[in-house]
Amino acid sequence: MAQISAASRGVYVIAVTPFHENGAIDIESLERVTDFYIESGASGITILGMMGEAPKLTQSEAREVAQRVILRAGDVPVVVGVSAPGLAAIGELGRTVMDMGAAGVMIAPPMSLRTDQQILGYYRQCAETLGVDVPICLQDFPLATTVQISNDLLGRIIDDVPEIVMLKHEDWPGLDKITALRAAEAKGRRRISVLCGNGGVFLPEEMARGADGAMTGFGYPEMLVTVCESVTKGDMDHAQDVFDAHLPLVRYEQQPGIGLAVRKYVLARRGAIASATIRKPGAPLNAAAIAELERLIARQEARLAALR
Amino acid sequence: MAQISAASRGVYVIAVTPFHENGAIDIESLERVTDFYIESGASGITILGMMGEAPKLTQSEAREVAQRVILRAGDVPVVVGVSAPGLAAIGELGRTVMDMGAAGVMIAPPMSLRTDQQILGYYRQCAETLGVDVPICLQDFPLATTVQISNDLLGRIIDDVPEIVMLKHEDWPGLDKITALRAAEAKGRRRISVLCGNGGVFLPEEMARGADGAMTGFGYPEMLVTVCESVTKGDMDHAQDVFDAHLPLVRYEQQPGIGLAVRKYVLARRGAIASATIRKPGAPLNAAAIAELERLIARQEARLAALR
Amino acid sequence: MAQISAASRGVYVIAVTPFHENGAIDIESLERVTDFYIESGASGITILGMMGEAPKLTQSEAREVAQRVILRAGDVPVVVGVSAPGLAAIGELGRTVMDMGAAGVMIAPPMSLRTDQQILGYYRQCAETLGVDVPICLQDFPLATTVQISNDLLGRIIDDVPEIVMLKHEDWPGLDKITALRAAEAKGRRRISVLCGNGGVFLPEEMARGADGAMTGFGYPEMLVTVCESVTKGDMDHAQDVFDAHLPLVRYEQQPGIGLAVRKYVLARRGAIASATIRKPGAPLNAAAIAELERLIARQEARLAALR
Amino acid sequence: MAQISAASRGVYVIAVTPFHENGAIDIESLERVTDFYIESGASGITILGMMGEAPKLTQSEAREVAQRVILRAGDVPVVVGVSAPGLAAIGELGRTVMDMGAAGVMIAPPMSLRTDQQILGYYRQCAETLGVDVPICLQDFPLATTVQISNDLLGRIIDDVPEIVMLKHEDWPGLDKITALRAAEAKGRRRISVLCGNGGVFLPEEMARGADGAMTGFGYPEMLVTVCESVTKGDMDHAQDVFDAHLPLVRYEQQPGIGLAVRKYVLARRGAIASATIRKPGAPLNAAAIAELERLIARQEARLAALR
Repeated sequence: MAQISAASRGVYVIAVTPFHENGAIDIESLERVTDFYIESGASGITILGMMGEAPKLTQSEAREVAQRVILRAGDVPVVVGVSAPGLAAIGELGRTVMDMGAAGVMIAPPMSLRTDQQILGYYRQCAETLGVDVPICLQDFPLATTVQISNDLLGRIIDDVPEIVMLKHEDWPGLDKITALRAAEAKGRRRISVLCGNGGVFLPEEMARGADGAMTGFGYPEMLVTVCESVTKGDMDHAQDVFDAHLPLVRYEQQPGIGLAVRKYVLARRGAIASATIRKPGAPLNAAAIAELERLIARQEARLAALR
Repeated sequence: MAQISAASRGVYVIAVTPFHENGAIDIESLERVTDFYIESGASGITILGMMGEAPKLTQSEAREVAQRVILRAGDVPVVVGVSAPGLAAIGELGRTVMDMGAAGVMIAPPMSLRTDQQILGYYRQCAETLGVDVPICLQDFPLATTVQISNDLLGRIIDDVPEIVMLKHEDWPGLDKITALRAAEAKGRRRISVLCGNGGVFLPEEMARGADGAMTGFGYPEMLVTVCESVTKGDMDHAQDVFDAHLPLVRYEQQPGIGLAVRKYVLARRGAIASATIRKPGAPLNAAAIAELERLIARQEARLAALR
Repeated sequence: MAQISAASRGVYVIAVTPFHENGAIDIESLERVTDFYIESGASGITILGMMGEAPKLTQSEAREVAQRVILRAGDVPVVVGVSAPGLAAIGELGRTVMDMGAAGVMIAPPMSLRTDQQILGYYRQCAETLGVDVPICLQDFPLATTVQISNDLLGRIIDDVPEIVMLKHEDWPGLDKITALRAAEAKGRRRISVLCGNGGVFLPEEMARGADGAMTGFGYPEMLVTVCESVTKGDMDHAQDVFDAHLPLVRYEQQPGIGLAVRKYVLARRGAIASATIRKPGAPLNAAAIAELERLIARQEARLAALR
Repeated sequence: MAQISAASRGVYVIAVTPFHENGAIDIESLERVTDFYIESGASGITILGMMGEAPKLTQSEAREVAQRVILRAGDVPVVVGVSAPGLAAIGELGRTVMDMGAAGVMIAPPMSLRTDQQILGYYRQCAETLGVDVPICLQDFPLATTVQISNDLLGRIIDDVPEIVMLKHEDWPGLDKITALRAAEAKGRRRISVLCGNGGVFLPEEMARGADGAMTGFGYPEMLVTVCESVTKGDMDHAQDVFDAHLPLVRYEQQPGIGLAVRKYVLARRGAIASATIRKPGAPLNAAAIAELERLIARQEARLAALR
């Protein structure tokens, strides 16, 4: 399978992990949602991320999920989240999934890091632990990790750790961070792929600033694909029209905590997975949230119909 | 002037503090923007909050801003942010502005608080320091303060600190928090006013869940007023139509860091203040952001025209 | 092997994990240091804690360390640290080591927890995941975890989670926390074992306040044993004399960051392990630190000689 | 009065703020404890620090404390803590106390700072706000502020902000930080004065590594003076003998939370202040703590008698 590289682009969907109502992994739905993402236009798939309920999986479950998705995705590259508090666990899972055919690994910095030197040192050690042949996607998500990476530090990491070929960009705000990175590349810094997260809530502007695509999830991943393609084609108006039509729901799904339940509800509603079950300690949507969500979906469908 | 109470409702606009380009306070613009907020339909005004650049003002400047706005607002209640690391400073500023005719004070918990007991104890001490006649608005904004207040703790604070009559609700997500609070009140807990923050990004749903209004800022505060009034009248569709038309801009203005520059740019563009200047160390919008913003404004105007 | 219980007492030494200079686990030293701890008077041994370099071990290494120490320790109870970001990993490792004959597991709260409800809920879930037959030691170490547990919350956790039979007490300061806990027990709360951490830096006072012993590490673990035994016998003066004689070194070893290198240096110097090697990314002591340490050891030996 | 500079050395005692039992500032004790510090051998005095209960003072009280201590201290330099969340407050208090004759100001970074760039930028802005003639002592205390300053960043701050002439060193551990700083100075970096904090718990080693003295508090400040002088004279043994004799109490006074009550109890016991009162919400020592403390003091006196 092709590995991720600085040339990677398009939408890498952050995949959910489907469960049966009894909490067991639903392998059939895992394969079905993999197909669904690819049919929606995904260029890649990212598994075992924060929204993939990775910390709730045993090590053997995590391996099975990786194996199944990688096999099912065929030529579509699969990035695997391997963030863990210890380097040993990162190395162990990383090498295992690369042997299975993963396209690369994604690593967010642990909450305990503070200084620029600590953060830089951490990525150096990750790369050393994984080995030179493992391409890394750096997940820059300070809202979740509390670790802040300045433009300057990001540049030093890129300079020092050649294994990092991709940025999952979800600093917030981050539009100027993309601009600064592309400007530095124009002056000679090694180029990396920039895929944007944060539920896509700034995706049109991010693409216009120079991002290569998105790496995030949404109940309607085809919207992410259309926005990326439209901006790439130069049709910013169409990108924004489609984006704006989905924005009330994007916003609702982006709520910390219940966002994953919203996403799974939508995916189950659309038939991409059998059950919206969240593994414990997660909770399903309550009735008030479902009513709000159904209302937002109905309004979205009306807007999309008007767009056509 | 009337004080805030559990019966307060409507939109309390979080006011900006206008500066001349040289960094001095622009008193004329301060009065003009006060008028602008009231003409936009505000039920109240909140000054010296995080978005009012309060930490950049000297004590005498903060007093002058409070005095000017309170006088200019006339019968419209003015809430004053008095958050500070020490109780002495809170007491000093609180009593000063109440003597000027403020309607109440707003206090966010300091970042150093962690346990429920610490947070509860803190609000008890604030109330004791301020004295029984000073109504308090509790600002619950964990994204900024890192202090998390559970439903249970919020209930204990309401039970123990009668001076707290209002919640500036900007936990995120917080829809169920409103529902839980109203359910507890239905079972006998003392009612408090709930005004929602977070730039209004969940305002239609928050109002439908039982909020009394908004306490936040936006370059087009009349949107907040229309949404609150429409939900109150039972016209959820109109509330959402107007909200959705503004949502791309709400989203853009809600970016941490540059959000205030966006808001001031819009207010200056609309003539409500003379200059979009942010006092140092803040920075004005760069050209890329202005271009994005102008594009969003033009698209918003087209949507609003279509709504009429 | 006996399991830990509310009646557990004495010194549970936090064990180091010895490595060869090439970074591989040194099994012979692991067994030797296990013997050393028991010969020093330890009542129990705690492995895979923060000072056991647990996050640097692969899952299979962690299992081997647990298996070897449990076998070697014989009748001496072995507590195994199983803290991890996800419940699945905690359950998996916990059940594995209990099957090997561990005496119980130790769990520190993850850094992301904030409210009392979150912390209480977390321990409920841990107990549910592990099953009713697994006794838990709650590690209360806010300096490292940033999670603060008030006296009130600690009581609620004890009331709600019967599997928690032991507290690794390293809140700082925590003398009054011990007193408050014992006072609550005198009024009817279920008793739990309290073993103190923090390198033993307040051990004489902690024992006098009602602690049952220590769960911490030190290059001279026999000091911890003597202090606990002397206070228990009522000889506070002897406890303090022995403690004071070691205090300059306790203090030096308690430095965050290099503390583990200090401890391993002393253990290697005493022949309890073959090499002071810290697995990467840890670093050995530099020459300046070694000189300071040798000086402190020489002075300590003189003081101990004078005591005899 | 002389200002602090890179040549400052000796012990700058962190002064307590004495209160009457009713909570009012005790001016007579403030002058008496100023005399006491000077008679104990202090080279300077630092007021309005974290242990000076500064956040509990109103602005006018803070000014009065500064004025009284500066007048009373005469030729002895007085450093004033001006840390505050906003630059305006720092500038206002800083200029006020410099006009009164302060020797310099001390600033700790606010908890909200994370990246190296933010921290560097913050000190640049502080210096700009205060003006070129105000010498600054940088308080590096990550345990309290959560802000971590690496050796590299500290060097950049020294390079970029010439107003910073002194470091209040209380990173923990920090021995190698002193060594690294002095090594960089030997290679050409501008020298600054390094005074150590943390209650003096590593003072002998810190002095031997190249510190210029201490800036901290202790109920027996003459110990700090003796240790600094002895190391300077080259008598490390005497420094350590005196230090070791006080260490059990240094340790007890260093407890976060109750440490200040311990210190005030000792100062009141020695007649340096009239009352050990802590202003609310602080609490006095309870009976158990007083008993522990009296016991430690009696043991200390016996050790000191044996030393003579």
